[in-house]
Amino acid sequence: MEPEEFRAAAHALVDWIADYRERIPELPVQSQVKPGDVAGLLPVSAPAAPESFDAVLRDLDHVVVPGITQVQHPNYYGWFPSNATLSSVLGDFATAGLGALGITWQSAPSLTEVEEVVVAWLRELTGVPETWYGVIQDTASTACLVALLAARERATDYSETRGGLQAEPAPMTVYTTEYAHSSIPKAVALAGFGMDNLRVVETDPWTRALRPAALAEAIAADVAEGRRPVAVVVNIGTTGTTAVDPLAEIVPIAREHGMWVHVDAAMAGSALLLPEQRGLVDGLEGADSLTWNPHKWMGTVLDCSLMYVADPEHLVRVMATDPSYLRSTVDGSVTQFKDWGIPLGRRFRALKLWFQLRLDGVEAIRDRLRRDLANARWLADQVEAAPRWRVLAPVSLQTVVLRHEPPDVVSPDGEVLDGAALDAHTLSWVDAINDSGRAFITPAKLDGRWSVRVSIGAEPTTAADVAALWDLLRSTAERG
Amino acid sequence: MEPEEFRAAAHALVDWIADYRERIPELPVQSQVKPGDVAGLLPVSAPAAPESFDAVLRDLDHVVVPGITQVQHPNYYGWFPSNATLSSVLGDFATAGLGALGITWQSAPSLTEVEEVVVAWLRELTGVPETWYGVIQDTASTACLVALLAARERATDYSETRGGLQAEPAPMTVYTTEYAHSSIPKAVALAGFGMDNLRVVETDPWTRALRPAALAEAIAADVAEGRRPVAVVVNIGTTGTTAVDPLAEIVPIAREHGMWVHVDAAMAGSALLLPEQRGLVDGLEGADSLTWNPHKWMGTVLDCSLMYVADPEHLVRVMATDPSYLRSTVDGSVTQFKDWGIPLGRRFRALKLWFQLRLDGVEAIRDRLRRDLANARWLADQVEAAPRWRVLAPVSLQTVVLRHEPPDVVSPDGEVLDGAALDAHTLSWVDAINDSGRAFITPAKLDGRWSVRVSIGAEPTTAADVAALWDLLRSTAERG
Ligand SMILES: Cc1ncc(COP(=O)(O)O)c(C=O)c1O
Ligand SMILES: Cc1ncc(COP(=O)(O)O)c(C=O)c1O
Repeated sequence: MEPEEFRAAAHALVDWIADYRERIPELPVQSQVKPGDVAGLLPVSAPAAPESFDAVLRDLDHVVVPGITQVQHPNYYGWFPSNATLSSVLGDFATAGLGALGITWQSAPSLTEVEEVVVAWLRELTGVPETWYGVIQDTASTACLVALLAARERATDYSETRGGLQAEPAPMTVYTTEYAHSSIPKAVALAGFGMDNLRVVETDPWTRALRPAALAEAIAADVAEGRRPVAVVVNIGTTGTTAVDPLAEIVPIAREHGMWVHVDAAMAGSALLLPEQRGLVDGLEGADSLTWNPHKWMGTVLDCSLMYVADPEHLVRVMATDPSYLRSTVDGSVTQFKDWGIPLGRRFRALKLWFQLRLDGVEAIRDRLRRDLANARWLADQVEAAPRWRVLAPVSLQTVVLRHEPPDVVSPDGEVLDGAALDAHTLSWVDAINDSGRAFITPAKLDGRWSVRVSIGAEPTTAADVAALWDLLRSTAERG
Repeated sequence: MEPEEFRAAAHALVDWIADYRERIPELPVQSQVKPGDVAGLLPVSAPAAPESFDAVLRDLDHVVVPGITQVQHPNYYGWFPSNATLSSVLGDFATAGLGALGITWQSAPSLTEVEEVVVAWLRELTGVPETWYGVIQDTASTACLVALLAARERATDYSETRGGLQAEPAPMTVYTTEYAHSSIPKAVALAGFGMDNLRVVETDPWTRALRPAALAEAIAADVAEGRRPVAVVVNIGTTGTTAVDPLAEIVPIAREHGMWVHVDAAMAGSALLLPEQRGLVDGLEGADSLTWNPHKWMGTVLDCSLMYVADPEHLVRVMATDPSYLRSTVDGSVTQFKDWGIPLGRRFRALKLWFQLRLDGVEAIRDRLRRDLANARWLADQVEAAPRWRVLAPVSLQTVVLRHEPPDVVSPDGEVLDGAALDAHTLSWVDAINDSGRAFITPAKLDGRWSVRVSIGAEPTTAADVAALWDLLRSTAERG
């Protein structure tokens, strides 16, 4: 496609996107299509001859949009916020339009250096230690795997250069809680530690935060049996209830054993932009790595996950390659982000962060985060005050975990009389709301029973929207 | 940013991108900035208040573009092609504008189903077995790691669910050649096999292709010493010389030992769109996985790597997670791409492939690939015919590996008299061309000496451009 043809098509697409964003509030939040509906609309083979841009644009309306659960909708309260702010979309569009290739510094110096600068801006904005260095990974899942690979290699004095894990005498163990995101055990498995060597450390029954004494005990038990504790993944803002593990108390225990401390703040990291929330990661200066996703609450369009490490030289040693076809005269004096993660070829991901921070400004982003925290507190207060409703976990951020407890299944003092009936009730009113398309919330198991997560923080969600949601929750659940 | 503000800014950005693409031919191909130049233009802290879009747009010109080696330039012959066709840019822009969240089928059914369909289109177009299934990964590096993790888990009957590699008795070995891309040994290291267990199998001195007999011997030697051969990475189009390992001869050897066969066709995969090139992967039906990058020669904007597997159920078993907060009523009847790779959150990457195939049409893409193959053959012919020039490897695709050999350092019958002087000469004329900004080529070590890779296939490169390049190569190297 030539630039002039692109120009015409792209102008049309800009209008389509702006119109789409404007009409999102009228769309059902949860996609209403059934499995196979979308695929059924597409031909079984690729077109041999070009189609018109109009035809493609029409399919965005007819095929694509109906098949999207609208996470940019004001009534989206599902999973976690996944904002794609239009300022960051502009940056992402520039990335694609430039078509730069990130393989070495030389292939696109500005790709590397803008990333270094913007990642340092966000380091400063979030209070991450000044001596740490950062890189953009695609996701927190990948970042945790990278962190555990770094941990493994530190603990084994670079076994990858020799016999790998296959030649290690004593098994290494990794620690986290049952509330860790599913990507954490997955990383333990993929890194080759084996699930038998993942320790699920006891948590506080109300806060769901790791109990440091239990961690110390688990470590001691493993050491006594000849195993080597090598890493702990500290959850700052769990997916279920945004529980916050006590990092400052965990760090000294881990340090005593030379363990790697990885901090998974995938969601909660955005809150670190607020100085008053820095306490969430008290003790960070004693940790080894931290990850959080601007692509969640902060609103940088997917995929954009920040990973900071205290010792980049170690990370590079684990990840580096040096083939002759990638050598250039400046090697040694520049950062080579290919050596900070798994992929070689990288997009110019920093542009979307750069555009967002500059076009929106940090203060406006902070205002929005504070708005969401206030809305969550307001909702929690309503739930607490309403008869037969219960808040099931501390509201440490913008997610309220709640349940409606009908009199026939939960006694007045909170004892569950019929768990199966309670679960059926919960899933039934949640499904009713989601199927209606009016709002979207996600159920999750908590202490073996279904709970309901209301995760506030879609970019357009106002206090009035949250008030309307509360009416909807009551009218739907109490009707049942 | 509100939709109306976005509309205005995005229209301006469209024009900026179209103008930029038009003026690329006037830009130096190799970025002329020095380390630190770009970072030096940026403030040390993020802006508290919003900046104007004009200011940001100006910085694209002043900060970003000078810091990019123009891989979309007609005179770009470096590394490998990294085309970002404007049709795919439109698709990528739609992806960002939609802001969809790919975590489960339910979060965006069309994200999953368009990916399934488009990946199947490309399966058909490239002659990959009908029984195979595909997924989009970010890069070939990640895909190879995923393949080796799958191999590891198949060989160990899912050791990840038990003691991991730490409890495996006999070490597992992986095979490839010295010409494998650097991401292959990196994946071996990261998967925990250990570099001691990577076997570099002997190759043919001219084709640089793996010698099957040598593979069989290496495997036999390992088996005799109690090791377990578990995977072979077959290189179809190596980075140095686009060497092609003989897949059809490798497969039966690997199968005898139940080994996983991963085919890395990161670059060459695009050629499979041409029916006459299918011979490149003869024997594929006996392999286990294949990866190639539409983000290279075919021209889908970064990042987009196709990975096909013969046994998706196995891959899913290795990669799957099933947390309650991601459950939905359709689970079991839909594809969950989160279980096909490392990241959880995914972009709607299929749109850029979908747009490109529909807007350009397959035949036009094929014509372009054939044009590049013909240009490479033409250049190779000129080099062969010119005194003191040598083609150093078979031209199996669109990359010509060559050298100019001055009389004082190489004898008339091709004996290198002074290797150091030859290397100095090669690097000096390559640097002269790259520093001039008129064309960009990349040197690489071959048999211990610097060679020059001329990798043809930038989207705008015509036969006339290649003829002009040949003049430039001659005038620069022969002047020296
Ligand atoms: C606490 C936590 N960690 C990690 C992740 C994984 O994020 P990603 O999709 O970036 O891999 C999530 C996703 O919701 C999360 O909530
Ligand atoms: C043969 C080969 N394999 C793998 C790769 C790695 O590609 P990626 O950047 O997608 O990881 C390359 C990159 O040039 C390559 O040439």
